[in-house]
Amino acid sequence: MTYRYKVSIEYEGTGYSGWQKQTNAKTTQGEIEKSLQQFSQEKIVTHGMGRTDAGVHAIAQIAHFDLEKKWDTNTVLQGINYFLKPQPIVITGCEIVSNDFHARHSAKKRTYQYVILNRFANPALDKNRAWHVSKNLDVQKMEEASKLLIGKHDFTSFRTTLCEAKSPVKTIEYIRFNIEGERITIEICAESFLHHMVRNIVGFLQLIGSGKKTANDLKEYLEANDVHIIKYTAPACGLYFTKVEY
Amino acid sequence: MTYRYKVSIEYEGTGYSGWQKQTNAKTTQGEIEKSLQQFSQEKIVTHGMGRTDAGVHAIAQIAHFDLEKKWDTNTVLQGINYFLKPQPIVITGCEIVSNDFHARHSAKKRTYQYVILNRFANPALDKNRAWHVSKNLDVQKMEEASKLLIGKHDFTSFRTTLCEAKSPVKTIEYIRFNIEGERITIEICAESFLHHMVRNIVGFLQLIGSGKKTANDLKEYLEANDVHIIKYTAPACGLYFTKVEY
Repeated sequence: MTYRYKVSIEYEGTGYSGWQKQTNAKTTQGEIEKSLQQFSQEKIVTHGMGRTDAGVHAIAQIAHFDLEKKWDTNTVLQGINYFLKPQPIVITGCEIVSNDFHARHSAKKRTYQYVILNRFANPALDKNRAWHVSKNLDVQKMEEASKLLIGKHDFTSFRTTLCEAKSPVKTIEYIRFNIEGERITIEICAESFLHHMVRNIVGFLQLIGSGKKTANDLKEYLEANDVHIIKYTAPACGLYFTKVEY
Repeated sequence: MTYRYKVSIEYEGTGYSGWQKQTNAKTTQGEIEKSLQQFSQEKIVTHGMGRTDAGVHAIAQIAHFDLEKKWDTNTVLQGINYFLKPQPIVITGCEIVSNDFHARHSAKKRTYQYVILNRFANPALDKNRAWHVSKNLDVQKMEEASKLLIGKHDFTSFRTTLCEAKSPVKTIEYIRFNIEGERITIEICAESFLHHMVRNIVGFLQLIGSGKKTANDLKEYLEANDVHIIKYTAPACGLYFTKVEY
Protein backbone atom coordinates (compact mmCIF):
# COMPACT_ATOMS: atom_id res chain seq x y z
CA MET A 1 0.00 0.00 0.00
CA THR A 2 1.40 3.36 -1.02
CA TYR A 3 0.04 6.88 -0.95
CA ARG A 4 0.17 9.11 -4.01
CA TYR A 5 1.18 12.74 -3.44
CA LYS A 6 0.54 15.51 -5.94
CA VAL A 7 2.77 18.56 -5.54
CA SER A 8 2.84 21.98 -7.15
CA ILE A 9 6.32 23.39 -7.73
CA GLU A 10 7.64 26.90 -8.35
CA TYR A 11 11.15 27.37 -9.67
CA GLU A 12 13.53 29.79 -11.30
CA GLY A 13 15.02 27.73 -14.12
CA THR A 14 18.20 29.81 -14.52
CA GLY A 15 21.18 27.63 -13.71
CA TYR A 16 19.32 24.32 -14.15
CA SER A 17 19.50 21.98 -17.12
CA GLY A 18 15.72 21.92 -17.33
CA TRP A 19 13.20 19.79 -15.47
CA GLN A 20 14.09 16.24 -16.44
CA LYS A 21 16.50 14.25 -14.30
CA GLN A 22 19.95 13.69 -15.86
CA THR A 23 22.96 11.80 -14.60
CA ASN A 24 25.55 14.53 -15.01
CA ALA A 25 23.57 17.75 -14.81
CA LYS A 26 21.66 19.68 -12.16
CA THR A 27 17.94 19.62 -12.97
CA THR A 28 14.89 20.70 -11.00
CA GLN A 29 13.42 17.19 -10.98
CA GLY A 30 16.76 15.78 -9.85
CA GLU A 31 17.02 18.27 -6.98
CA ILE A 32 13.45 17.59 -5.88
CA GLU A 33 13.96 13.80 -5.85
CA LYS A 34 17.16 14.21 -3.85
CA SER A 35 15.42 16.41 -1.25
CA LEU A 36 12.39 14.14 -1.16
CA GLN A 37 14.60 11.12 -0.46
CA GLN A 38 16.47 12.98 2.28
CA PHE A 39 13.16 13.90 3.85
CA SER A 40 11.26 10.61 3.48
CA GLN A 41 14.14 8.13 3.59
CA GLU A 42 12.36 6.25 0.81
CA LYS A 43 13.60 5.62 -2.76
CA ILE A 44 11.44 7.87 -4.89
CA VAL A 45 10.62 8.37 -8.53
CA THR A 46 8.72 11.53 -9.42
CA HIS A 47 6.56 12.04 -12.51
CA GLY A 48 6.31 15.58 -13.80
CA MET A 49 3.48 17.13 -15.76
CA GLY A 50 5.88 18.11 -18.50
CA ARG A 51 9.52 18.78 -19.15
CA THR A 52 10.77 22.33 -19.23
CA ASP A 53 13.94 23.33 -21.10
CA ALA A 54 17.06 24.73 -19.44
CA GLY A 55 16.36 28.26 -18.22
CA VAL A 56 12.56 27.96 -18.38
CA HIS A 57 10.72 28.85 -15.15
CA ALA A 58 7.65 27.40 -13.47
CA ILE A 59 4.96 29.04 -11.39
CA ALA A 60 3.14 25.73 -11.03
CA GLN A 61 4.82 22.63 -12.39
CA ILE A 62 2.90 19.57 -11.18
CA ALA A 63 4.43 16.23 -10.18
CA HIS A 64 3.33 13.10 -8.38
CA PHE A 65 5.13 10.39 -6.43
CA ASP A 66 4.27 7.50 -4.15
CA LEU A 67 5.34 7.06 -0.54
CA GLU A 68 4.80 4.12 1.77
CA LYS A 69 4.12 6.41 4.67
CA LYS A 70 1.02 8.56 5.02
CA TRP A 71 2.29 11.97 6.01
CA ASP A 72 0.56 15.20 6.86
CA THR A 73 0.78 17.07 3.55
CA ASN A 74 2.13 20.29 5.11
CA THR A 75 4.92 18.23 6.65
CA VAL A 76 5.83 16.84 3.21
CA LEU A 77 5.83 20.35 1.73
CA GLN A 78 8.01 21.78 4.50
CA GLY A 79 10.25 18.72 4.59
CA ILE A 80 11.12 18.84 0.89
CA ASN A 81 11.53 22.63 0.98
CA TYR A 82 13.88 22.34 3.95
CA PHE A 83 16.27 20.16 1.96
CA LEU A 84 15.84 22.22 -1.25
CA LYS A 85 17.04 25.41 0.45
CA PRO A 86 18.67 27.71 -0.57
CA GLN A 87 17.82 26.77 -4.15
CA PRO A 88 15.10 28.72 -5.99
CA ILE A 89 12.90 25.61 -6.12
CA VAL A 90 9.91 25.43 -3.79
CA ILE A 91 6.99 23.06 -3.27
CA THR A 92 4.02 25.44 -3.02
CA GLY A 93 1.25 22.88 -2.56
CA CYS A 94 0.87 19.22 -1.62
CA GLU A 95 -2.13 16.89 -1.47
CA ILE A 96 -2.81 13.18 -1.37
CA VAL A 97 -4.61 12.01 -4.51
CA SER A 98 -6.06 8.73 -5.73
CA ASN A 99 -3.60 6.17 -7.04
CA ASP A 100 -4.84 6.50 -10.62
CA PHE A 101 -3.90 10.18 -10.80
CA HIS A 102 -0.98 10.83 -13.14
CA ALA A 103 0.66 14.28 -13.32
CA ARG A 104 1.12 14.01 -17.08
CA HIS A 105 -1.50 11.59 -18.37
CA SER A 106 -4.36 13.06 -16.37
CA ALA A 107 -3.63 16.64 -17.48
CA LYS A 108 -6.44 18.15 -19.56
CA LYS A 109 -5.10 21.63 -20.23
CA ARG A 110 -1.75 23.41 -19.91
CA THR A 111 -1.00 27.13 -19.77
CA TYR A 112 2.27 28.91 -20.41
CA GLN A 113 3.16 32.56 -20.08
CA TYR A 114 5.87 34.26 -22.08
CA VAL A 115 7.25 37.60 -20.87
CA ILE A 116 8.90 40.15 -23.17
CA LEU A 117 10.58 43.22 -21.71
CA ASN A 118 10.13 45.74 -24.50
CA ARG A 119 12.36 48.72 -23.82
CA PHE A 120 15.65 50.22 -24.88
CA ALA A 121 17.66 49.38 -21.73
CA ASN A 122 18.54 45.81 -20.83
CA PRO A 123 16.79 44.28 -17.79
CA ALA A 124 17.99 44.50 -14.18
CA LEU A 125 15.08 43.18 -12.10
CA ASP A 126 13.96 40.97 -15.01
CA LYS A 127 17.43 39.62 -15.74
CA ASN A 128 17.01 35.94 -16.79
CA ARG A 129 13.26 36.39 -16.31
CA ALA A 130 12.15 37.95 -19.59
CA TRP A 131 13.16 38.25 -23.25
CA HIS A 132 14.67 41.66 -23.76
CA VAL A 133 13.50 43.16 -27.07
CA SER A 134 14.79 46.68 -27.53
CA LYS A 135 12.93 47.51 -30.71
CA ASN A 136 9.44 48.86 -30.10
CA LEU A 137 6.90 46.11 -30.85
CA ASP A 138 3.49 46.60 -32.45
CA VAL A 139 1.56 44.39 -30.04
CA GLN A 140 -1.73 44.88 -31.85
CA LYS A 141 -0.25 43.31 -35.00
CA MET A 142 1.09 40.41 -32.95
CA GLU A 143 -2.28 39.86 -31.33
CA GLU A 144 -4.15 39.96 -34.62
CA ALA A 145 -1.76 37.51 -36.27
CA SER A 146 -1.91 35.17 -33.28
CA LYS A 147 -5.58 34.51 -34.05
CA LEU A 148 -4.47 32.43 -37.04
CA LEU A 149 -3.07 29.89 -34.58
CA ILE A 150 -6.15 29.50 -32.38
CA GLY A 151 -7.99 26.20 -32.74
CA LYS A 152 -6.91 22.85 -34.17
CA HIS A 153 -3.91 22.89 -36.51
CA ASP A 154 -0.99 20.79 -37.65
CA PHE A 155 1.87 22.56 -35.85
CA THR A 156 4.72 20.63 -37.51
CA SER A 157 6.47 23.90 -38.48
CA PHE A 158 6.60 24.88 -34.80
CA ARG A 159 8.03 21.63 -33.40
CA THR A 160 11.65 20.49 -33.22
CA THR A 161 13.04 17.39 -34.85
CA LEU A 162 13.55 16.05 -31.31
CA CYS A 163 9.85 16.25 -30.50
CA GLU A 164 8.47 12.89 -29.40
CA ALA A 165 4.75 13.68 -29.60
CA LYS A 166 2.77 11.16 -31.63
CA SER A 167 0.73 13.74 -33.52
CA PRO A 168 1.66 17.28 -34.62
CA VAL A 169 -2.00 18.26 -34.49
CA LYS A 170 -2.72 20.39 -31.43
CA THR A 171 -5.56 22.64 -30.35
CA ILE A 172 -4.76 26.08 -28.97
CA GLU A 173 -7.61 27.29 -26.83
CA TYR A 174 -6.47 30.88 -26.54
CA ILE A 175 -3.52 33.27 -26.87
CA ARG A 176 -3.94 36.34 -24.65
CA PHE A 177 -1.84 39.48 -24.62
CA ASN A 178 -1.38 41.70 -21.60
CA ILE A 179 0.66 44.91 -21.58
CA GLU A 180 1.85 46.39 -18.29
CA GLY A 181 4.20 49.28 -18.95
CA GLU A 182 7.26 47.80 -20.64
CA ARG A 183 6.20 44.19 -20.06
CA ILE A 184 4.27 42.23 -22.64
CA THR A 185 2.88 38.93 -21.35
CA ILE A 186 1.59 36.36 -23.81
CA GLU A 187 -0.47 33.57 -22.28
CA ILE A 188 -1.05 30.42 -24.34
CA CYS A 189 -3.40 27.62 -23.35
CA ALA A 190 -3.79 24.23 -25.03
CA GLU A 191 -4.58 20.64 -24.18
CA SER A 192 -0.91 19.89 -24.85
CA PHE A 193 2.06 21.32 -26.73
CA LEU A 194 4.87 20.13 -29.01
CA HIS A 195 8.53 20.56 -28.11
CA HIS A 196 9.52 24.27 -28.37
CA MET A 197 6.02 25.11 -29.68
CA VAL A 198 5.43 28.10 -27.38
CA ARG A 199 8.91 29.53 -27.91
CA ASN A 200 8.65 29.09 -31.68
CA ILE A 201 5.24 30.78 -31.76
CA VAL A 202 6.43 33.72 -29.65
CA GLY A 203 9.59 34.05 -31.74
CA PHE A 204 7.53 34.35 -34.91
CA LEU A 205 5.06 36.79 -33.35
CA GLN A 206 7.95 38.97 -32.25
CA LEU A 207 9.08 39.23 -35.89
CA ILE A 208 5.57 40.36 -36.80
CA GLY A 209 5.62 42.93 -33.98
CA SER A 210 8.91 44.34 -35.19
CA GLY A 211 7.71 44.52 -38.81
CA LYS A 212 10.00 41.84 -40.23
CA LYS A 213 7.20 39.38 -40.95
CA THR A 214 3.48 39.67 -41.66
CA ALA A 215 0.41 37.75 -40.61
CA ASN A 216 0.40 36.27 -44.09
CA ASP A 217 3.96 34.99 -43.58
CA LEU A 218 2.72 33.28 -40.41
CA LYS A 219 -0.14 31.65 -42.33
CA GLU A 220 2.26 30.28 -44.97
CA TYR A 221 4.69 29.14 -42.28
CA LEU A 222 1.96 27.27 -40.42
CA GLU A 223 0.63 25.70 -43.61
CA ALA A 224 4.11 24.57 -44.69
CA ASN A 225 3.91 21.74 -42.12
CA ASP A 226 7.67 21.42 -42.34
CA VAL A 227 9.66 20.33 -39.30
CA HIS A 228 12.90 21.41 -41.02
CA ILE A 229 11.73 24.95 -41.77
CA ILE A 230 13.91 27.71 -40.24
CA LYS A 231 12.93 28.29 -36.59
CA TYR A 232 12.56 31.63 -34.77
CA THR A 233 12.84 30.32 -31.23
CA ALA A 234 12.30 32.85 -28.45
CA PRO A 235 14.82 32.46 -25.60
CA ALA A 236 14.04 30.14 -22.70
CA CYS A 237 14.36 32.81 -20.00
CA GLY A 238 11.03 34.48 -20.91
CA LEU A 239 8.97 31.29 -20.55
CA TYR A 240 6.92 30.32 -17.47
CA PHE A 241 4.97 27.12 -17.07
CA THR A 242 1.97 28.51 -15.21
CA LYS A 243 -0.98 26.14 -14.89
CA VAL A 244 -2.30 22.64 -15.42
CA GLU A 245 -5.94 21.69 -15.25
CA TYR A 246 -6.99 18.13 -14.48
CA MET B 1 30.97 74.59 -18.96
CA THR B 2 29.52 71.23 -17.99
CA TYR B 3 26.36 69.37 -18.93
CA ARG B 4 24.07 67.91 -16.29
CA TYR B 5 22.68 64.44 -16.93
CA LYS B 6 19.68 62.98 -15.12
CA VAL B 7 19.49 59.19 -15.14
CA SER B 8 16.87 56.70 -14.03
CA ILE B 9 18.26 53.51 -12.52
CA GLU B 10 16.80 50.05 -11.94
CA TYR B 11 18.56 47.63 -9.61
CA GLU B 12 18.22 44.48 -7.60
CA GLY B 13 19.63 45.46 -4.23
CA THR B 14 20.47 41.91 -3.08
CA GLY B 15 24.20 41.63 -2.62
CA TYR B 16 24.82 45.39 -2.41
CA SER B 17 25.43 47.43 0.73
CA GLY B 18 22.74 49.87 -0.28
CA TRP B 19 22.89 52.86 -2.60
CA GLN B 20 25.43 55.15 -0.98
CA LYS B 21 29.10 54.93 -1.97
CA GLN B 22 31.37 53.38 0.67
CA THR B 23 35.09 52.80 0.70
CA ASN B 24 35.08 49.12 1.59
CA ALA B 25 31.73 47.86 0.37
CA LYS B 26 30.02 47.27 -2.96
CA THR B 27 27.17 49.74 -3.40
CA THR B 28 24.97 50.59 -6.36
CA GLN B 29 26.13 54.21 -6.43
CA GLY B 30 29.75 53.08 -6.24
CA GLU B 31 29.31 50.65 -9.15
CA ILE B 32 27.55 53.28 -11.26
CA GLU B 33 30.29 55.88 -10.66
CA LYS B 34 32.95 53.32 -11.56
CA SER B 35 31.18 52.42 -14.82
CA LEU B 36 30.49 56.05 -15.62
CA GLN B 37 34.18 56.91 -15.20
CA GLN B 38 35.23 53.99 -17.38
CA PHE B 39 32.82 55.16 -20.05
CA SER B 40 33.41 58.93 -19.92
CA GLN B 41 37.04 59.00 -18.80
CA GLU B 42 36.07 61.90 -16.53
CA LYS B 43 36.19 62.04 -12.71
CA ILE B 44 32.55 61.91 -11.66
CA VAL B 45 30.46 62.46 -8.57
CA THR B 46 26.84 61.33 -8.72
CA HIS B 47 24.00 62.65 -6.59
CA GLY B 48 21.17 60.23 -5.88
CA MET B 49 17.57 61.06 -5.13
CA GLY B 50 17.76 59.10 -1.92
CA ARG B 51 19.70 56.38 -0.19
CA THR B 52 18.36 52.88 -0.16
CA ASP B 53 19.36 50.33 2.50
CA ALA B 54 21.23 47.11 1.78
CA GLY B 55 18.92 44.68 -0.02
CA VAL B 56 16.37 47.32 -1.06
CA HIS B 57 15.55 47.43 -4.79
CA ALA B 58 14.83 50.26 -7.18
CA ILE B 59 12.59 50.44 -10.20
CA ALA B 60 13.48 54.09 -10.75
CA GLN B 61 16.16 55.58 -8.53
CA ILE B 62 17.11 58.99 -9.92
CA ALA B 63 20.61 60.49 -9.97
CA HIS B 64 22.37 63.38 -11.63
CA PHE B 65 25.99 64.11 -12.55
CA ASP B 66 27.94 66.61 -14.63
CA LEU B 67 30.14 65.85 -17.63
CA GLU B 68 32.34 68.19 -19.61
CA LYS B 69 31.37 66.50 -22.82
CA LYS B 70 27.94 66.75 -24.42
CA TRP B 71 27.03 63.22 -25.35
CA ASP B 72 24.07 61.71 -27.10
CA THR B 73 21.95 60.51 -24.13
CA ASN B 74 21.41 57.01 -25.56
CA THR B 75 25.19 56.68 -25.85
CA VAL B 76 25.57 57.57 -22.16
CA LEU B 77 22.89 55.05 -21.21
CA GLN B 78 24.44 52.25 -23.26
CA GLY B 79 27.97 53.19 -22.24
CA ILE B 80 27.32 52.98 -18.51
CA ASN B 81 25.26 49.80 -18.93
CA TYR B 82 28.07 48.21 -20.92
CA PHE B 83 30.48 48.61 -18.01
CA LEU B 84 27.85 47.68 -15.40
CA LYS B 85 27.25 44.26 -16.99
CA PRO B 86 26.64 41.59 -15.77
CA GLN B 87 25.46 43.26 -12.58
CA PRO B 88 21.71 43.69 -11.95
CA ILE B 89 22.05 47.48 -12.18
CA VAL B 90 20.81 49.21 -15.32
CA ILE B 91 20.39 52.82 -16.46
CA THR B 92 16.88 52.83 -17.94
CA GLY B 93 16.67 56.47 -18.95
CA CYS B 94 19.00 59.43 -19.52
CA GLU B 95 18.38 63.07 -20.35
CA ILE B 96 20.26 66.36 -20.21
CA VAL B 97 18.70 68.75 -17.70
CA SER B 98 19.33 72.32 -16.63
CA ASN B 99 22.26 72.91 -14.30
CA ASP B 100 20.02 73.85 -11.38
CA PHE B 101 18.32 70.45 -11.35
CA HIS B 102 19.21 68.39 -8.27
CA ALA B 103 18.14 64.73 -7.99
CA ARG B 104 17.40 65.08 -4.26
CA HIS B 105 16.66 68.74 -3.62
CA SER B 106 14.36 69.17 -6.61
CA ALA B 107 12.28 66.10 -5.75
CA LYS B 108 8.67 66.93 -4.90
CA LYS B 109 7.22 63.50 -4.25
CA ARG B 110 8.57 59.98 -3.67
CA THR B 111 6.83 56.63 -4.03
CA TYR B 112 7.83 53.28 -2.58
CA GLN B 113 6.29 49.86 -3.04
CA TYR B 114 6.49 47.09 -0.51
CA VAL B 115 5.77 43.51 -1.59
CA ILE B 116 4.60 40.79 0.79
CA LEU B 117 4.34 37.20 -0.40
CA ASN B 118 1.52 35.88 1.77
CA ARG B 119 1.48 32.11 1.51
CA PHE B 120 2.52 29.02 3.39
CA ALA B 121 5.49 28.05 1.19
CA ASN B 122 8.65 30.14 1.06
CA PRO B 123 9.34 32.04 -2.19
CA ALA B 124 11.23 30.69 -5.20
CA LEU B 125 10.67 33.28 -7.95
CA ASP B 126 10.32 36.03 -5.33
CA LYS B 127 13.39 34.98 -3.34
CA ASN B 128 15.06 38.19 -2.06
CA ARG B 129 12.26 40.15 -3.80
CA ALA B 130 9.45 40.04 -1.25
CA TRP B 131 8.78 39.60 2.47
CA HIS B 132 7.53 36.09 3.03
CA VAL B 133 4.69 36.06 5.58
CA SER B 134 3.26 32.59 6.00
CA LYS B 135 0.38 33.50 8.29
CA ASN B 136 -2.74 34.58 6.42
CA LEU B 137 -3.06 38.37 6.62
CA ASP B 138 -6.29 40.30 6.98
CA VAL B 139 -5.50 42.95 4.37
CA GLN B 140 -8.72 44.84 4.96
CA LYS B 141 -7.70 45.48 8.57
CA MET B 142 -4.27 46.63 7.43
CA GLU B 143 -5.79 48.97 4.89
CA GLU B 144 -8.24 50.46 7.37
CA ALA B 145 -5.55 51.04 9.99
CA SER B 146 -3.22 52.59 7.41
CA LYS B 147 -5.66 55.49 7.02
CA LEU B 148 -4.53 56.74 10.45
CA LEU B 149 -1.16 57.53 8.90
CA ILE B 150 -2.38 59.50 5.89
CA GLY B 151 -1.73 63.23 6.05
CA LYS B 152 0.67 65.32 8.14
CA HIS B 153 2.02 63.66 11.31
CA ASP B 154 5.02 63.57 13.55
CA PHE B 155 6.54 60.20 12.55
CA THR B 156 9.23 60.09 15.27
CA SER B 157 8.11 56.60 16.35
CA PHE B 158 8.77 55.33 12.81
CA ARG B 159 12.29 56.76 12.34
CA THR B 160 15.63 55.34 13.47
CA THR B 161 18.03 57.04 15.84
CA LEU B 162 20.37 57.35 12.83
CA CYS B 163 17.88 59.43 10.87
CA GLU B 164 19.36 62.75 9.79
CA ALA B 165 16.17 64.50 8.70
CA LYS B 166 15.70 67.93 10.28
CA SER B 167 12.02 67.44 11.07
CA PRO B 168 10.10 64.26 11.97
CA VAL B 169 6.93 65.79 10.56
CA LYS B 170 6.07 64.26 7.20
CA THR B 171 2.99 64.18 5.00
CA ILE B 172 1.85 60.87 3.55
CA GLU B 173 -0.24 61.49 0.48
CA TYR B 174 -1.60 57.96 0.13
CA ILE B 175 -1.11 54.31 1.09
CA ARG B 176 -2.59 51.96 -1.50
CA PHE B 177 -3.07 48.23 -1.23
CA ASN B 178 -3.15 45.87 -4.17
CA ILE B 179 -3.71 42.12 -3.93
CA GLU B 180 -2.74 39.85 -6.81
CA GLY B 181 -3.08 36.22 -5.78
CA GLU B 182 -0.54 35.64 -3.02
CA ARG B 183 1.16 39.01 -3.50
CA ILE B 184 0.19 42.04 -1.45
CA THR B 185 1.67 45.30 -2.71
CA ILE B 186 1.58 48.37 -0.50
CA GLU B 187 2.35 51.64 -2.28
CA ILE B 188 3.25 54.66 -0.14
CA CYS B 189 3.65 58.18 -1.48
CA ALA B 190 4.95 61.23 0.38
CA GLU B 191 6.93 64.39 -0.25
CA SER B 192 9.79 62.75 1.67
CA PHE B 193 10.39 59.99 4.21
CA LEU B 194 12.38 59.41 7.39
CA HIS B 195 15.02 56.67 7.67
CA HIS B 196 13.29 53.23 7.79
CA MET B 197 9.88 54.92 7.80
CA VAL B 198 8.31 52.74 5.08
CA ARG B 199 9.71 49.51 6.53
CA ASN B 200 8.58 50.46 10.04
CA ILE B 201 5.09 51.30 8.81
CA VAL B 202 4.78 48.04 6.86
CA GLY B 203 6.13 46.05 9.80
CA PHE B 204 3.44 47.48 12.08
CA LEU B 205 0.67 46.98 9.51
CA GLN B 206 1.72 43.35 9.17
CA LEU B 207 1.17 42.88 12.90
CA ILE B 208 -2.33 44.30 12.48
CA GLY B 209 -2.99 41.97 9.54
CA SER B 210 -1.92 38.97 11.57
CA GLY B 211 -4.05 39.99 14.56
CA LYS B 212 -1.22 40.78 16.95
CA LYS B 213 -1.90 44.52 17.03
CA THR B 214 -4.94 46.71 16.46
CA ALA B 215 -5.57 50.01 14.72
CA ASN B 216 -5.78 51.53 18.18
CA ASP B 217 -2.28 50.24 19.00
CA LEU B 218 -1.07 51.96 15.84
CA LYS B 219 -2.70 55.22 16.91
CA GLU B 220 -0.99 55.08 20.31
CA TYR B 221 2.33 54.12 18.72
CA LEU B 222 2.17 57.05 16.32
CA GLU B 223 1.19 59.46 19.08
CA ALA B 224 4.02 58.27 21.35
CA ASN B 225 6.48 60.29 19.21
CA ASP B 226 9.28 58.19 20.66
CA VAL B 227 12.36 57.42 18.58
CA HIS B 228 13.43 54.75 21.10
CA ILE B 229 10.12 52.85 21.01
CA ILE B 230 10.45 49.19 19.91
CA LYS B 231 10.53 48.95 16.11
CA TYR B 232 8.77 46.41 13.89
CA THR B 233 10.94 46.83 10.82
CA ALA B 234 9.87 44.89 7.74
CA PRO B 235 12.82 43.28 5.92
CA ALA B 236 14.67 45.22 3.22
CA CYS B 237 14.09 42.64 0.46
CA GLY B 238 10.41 43.56 0.03
CA LEU B 239 11.04 47.26 -0.58
CA TYR B 240 11.19 48.94 -4.02
CA PHE B 241 11.93 52.58 -4.64
CA THR B 242 9.55 53.18 -7.52
CA LYS B 243 9.03 56.81 -8.47
CA VAL B 244 10.13 60.40 -7.98
CA GLU B 245 8.21 63.42 -9.18
CA TYR B 246 9.95 66.72 -9.82
